[in-house]
Amino acid sequence: MKVEWNPRFREIDDTYLFAKTAALARACAAKHPERRVISLGIGDVTRPLPSVAVNAMMNAAREMGEEPSFRGYPPDGGYPFLRAAISAHYRRFGAQVSVDDIFASDGTKSDLGNFYDILGSTPVLLSNPVYPVWRDAGILAGASIGFLTGRPENGFLPTPEGLPDRPFVICLCSPNNPTGSAFTYDGLGAWVSFARRTGSLILMDAAYSAFVGRGMPRTVYEIEGAETCAVEFGSFSKMAGFTGVRCSWTVVPHALDGGIPRALGARRQSTKFNGVGYITARGAEAVLSDGGRVQCNANIAYYRENAGMLTDLLTQKGIPFTGGKHAPYVWFRTPRGTSSMQAFTYLLEEAGVVSTPGSGFGEAGEGYLRLTAFASHADTQEAVSRLQTVLC
Amino acid sequence: MKVEWNPRFREIDDTYLFAKTAALARACAAKHPERRVISLGIGDVTRPLPSVAVNAMMNAAREMGEEPSFRGYPPDGGYPFLRAAISAHYRRFGAQVSVDDIFASDGTKSDLGNFYDILGSTPVLLSNPVYPVWRDAGILAGASIGFLTGRPENGFLPTPEGLPDRPFVICLCSPNNPTGSAFTYDGLGAWVSFARRTGSLILMDAAYSAFVGRGMPRTVYEIEGAETCAVEFGSFSKMAGFTGVRCSWTVVPHALDGGIPRALGARRQSTKFNGVGYITARGAEAVLSDGGRVQCNANIAYYRENAGMLTDLLTQKGIPFTGGKHAPYVWFRTPRGTSSMQAFTYLLEEAGVVSTPGSGFGEAGEGYLRLTAFASHADTQEAVSRLQTVLC
Repeated sequence: MKVEWNPRFREIDDTYLFAKTAALARACAAKHPERRVISLGIGDVTRPLPSVAVNAMMNAAREMGEEPSFRGYPPDGGYPFLRAAISAHYRRFGAQVSVDDIFASDGTKSDLGNFYDILGSTPVLLSNPVYPVWRDAGILAGASIGFLTGRPENGFLPTPEGLPDRPFVICLCSPNNPTGSAFTYDGLGAWVSFARRTGSLILMDAAYSAFVGRGMPRTVYEIEGAETCAVEFGSFSKMAGFTGVRCSWTVVPHALDGGIPRALGARRQSTKFNGVGYITARGAEAVLSDGGRVQCNANIAYYRENAGMLTDLLTQKGIPFTGGKHAPYVWFRTPRGTSSMQAFTYLLEEAGVVSTPGSGFGEAGEGYLRLTAFASHADTQEAVSRLQTVLC
Repeated sequence: MKVEWNPRFREIDDTYLFAKTAALARACAAKHPERRVISLGIGDVTRPLPSVAVNAMMNAAREMGEEPSFRGYPPDGGYPFLRAAISAHYRRFGAQVSVDDIFASDGTKSDLGNFYDILGSTPVLLSNPVYPVWRDAGILAGASIGFLTGRPENGFLPTPEGLPDRPFVICLCSPNNPTGSAFTYDGLGAWVSFARRTGSLILMDAAYSAFVGRGMPRTVYEIEGAETCAVEFGSFSKMAGFTGVRCSWTVVPHALDGGIPRALGARRQSTKFNGVGYITARGAEAVLSDGGRVQCNANIAYYRENAGMLTDLLTQKGIPFTGGKHAPYVWFRTPRGTSSMQAFTYLLEEAGVVSTPGSGFGEAGEGYLRLTAFASHADTQEAVSRLQTVLC
């Protein structure tokens, strides 16, 4: 074969971070068959789906099996009933998001990667540490990437201070993966002001917004003027336990650059995507109903309890950390100044607890580990009691 | 806003072909409220889902609502049970496709567009006429695109004859959308020989392969050596009526270029895709069971009957056509040498029948129309009787 392949793959690691740590965890489990490995590594939910979603999807499957109610291709941007439910979801936070500005999709990972398809050559600024998908998909797309370095002093929440007055594409994530930090109104407001002054575009990854508590913004559109400078990515994955169902959305407001990105986004989807299937869409609609939200909130509260167990342990040990309050992630300094990978291996070998090495999220993550609050209460408790012994 | 957008969007039409013709059909329906518009336009199925798929998806939804059987993120490449069922599907045609070489996804439209992510600068050859996604996604990806022109003389099935002896990425579609032509063993064999001799890569869109009858290849992997030069895209959409469920797959054989494209494909999916959801995967697995295949074949037979009604009409009128035998599409010369758009408008206005203008598939489609066999028997019969009057 003499065909050339995309040479940019050489610029990214050949294994995605979570695949790599999962392989190490499997090897450790095989080595210690007597001890169960507990995963506080990958950010995957464990609570079953809300019953409203199950019922809605069973009904939808039944409809698809009968001629009068069968549905073929969904609309590229998503069923109007789903987009209406998402728009109503934003209204509950006092944010106006028009139904026509919502694009339903199969996942935020796809959406983040795919958004590069409509971007031109404007430099992209990513947080560091950052969810690896932002970085790797950007490299594959040939984007010119710079970093906004998170530090303990800024609570791992980058600010626009010191940036040149020129347009950027600014990728933010709040509540943050991996650091668990969340923007205040002021913190987010500073970014919206910067973007409006410089003609920049904010891309806000809000996949974890269901974990934000009172007094903090749940969406960038709570900030005045954000609809003229910000795109937001939302997800059913963590809000409703949909990681195994696959449904999320992107908001591209019509007020953004005269509607150009919304038109390009629609053109992109009609060329490279066929919409969210009917059964999935009915499930997603259901979790945004009154009954659905009660069930989702119960699951969020469950995970928050886990986060509390983890932050209590770290507080008690005097280990500096961020997150765990408005996010399902807890981010902490590795013991005794070891590297992320050393600490990952130490916790895995000594306690049988899988974490995620901070270095996988960029250089600024070196010397940190991420734990997730998505395990069961029992597993989280067991992990905490094992970590009690090995953390010092 | 001073952000730059991908300038390549200027090189593609701002409206996707099917969106444009749908708008014209809606306008016509509004103008003639007394007459029902019958769509033989977009290639979307109408038969309800096989009951095996409905039952499997209802069970899977139920499992997702219970803690012991709940499933989070699916494997990026698809559940092993689904990949095993797809591998068995190929074995029925005498083709060996390894489970590890199968990537499950949400649709062939996504897969075709996304495959450009792993390609380098080797020139891409598309058929003309061509499914617009191939062309538009290629332009957006910055591919260097050439065309293989289909003509009535070659039954709209391009051959490698006359091509220079150098490597290309060769995009084929059989059974063809839009022309309904299907490769014989010899026709496909000639492409595999050319690819092997020149180090070229074949990308085979086999989304309509369920319509292929006896004596013709159902997959490129029936051709000896194809696993060293061909990727194949398969789909549940037309085979099992899954256009509204969303599931398909790509085969990237490990024998292809020493496993490089398979590794890049896996890396691409782990970066920009989160796998096919559990409920969908169980539905797809079910249609490949013995019982599922019986139900799918009944639907395919139903659509074939429609295709027969359309080809009978054209034969009787003496209008030259291709397709309808091994494909759900019938492709024919416009009446009286009119342009595709004139003929589209004529059939819409005079008969209330929506077709698809061939010119939307490329210059070589000018002067042709596409009709689909996916309507109900009643609608197809009604369309045929209306066309009886207006076609001459």
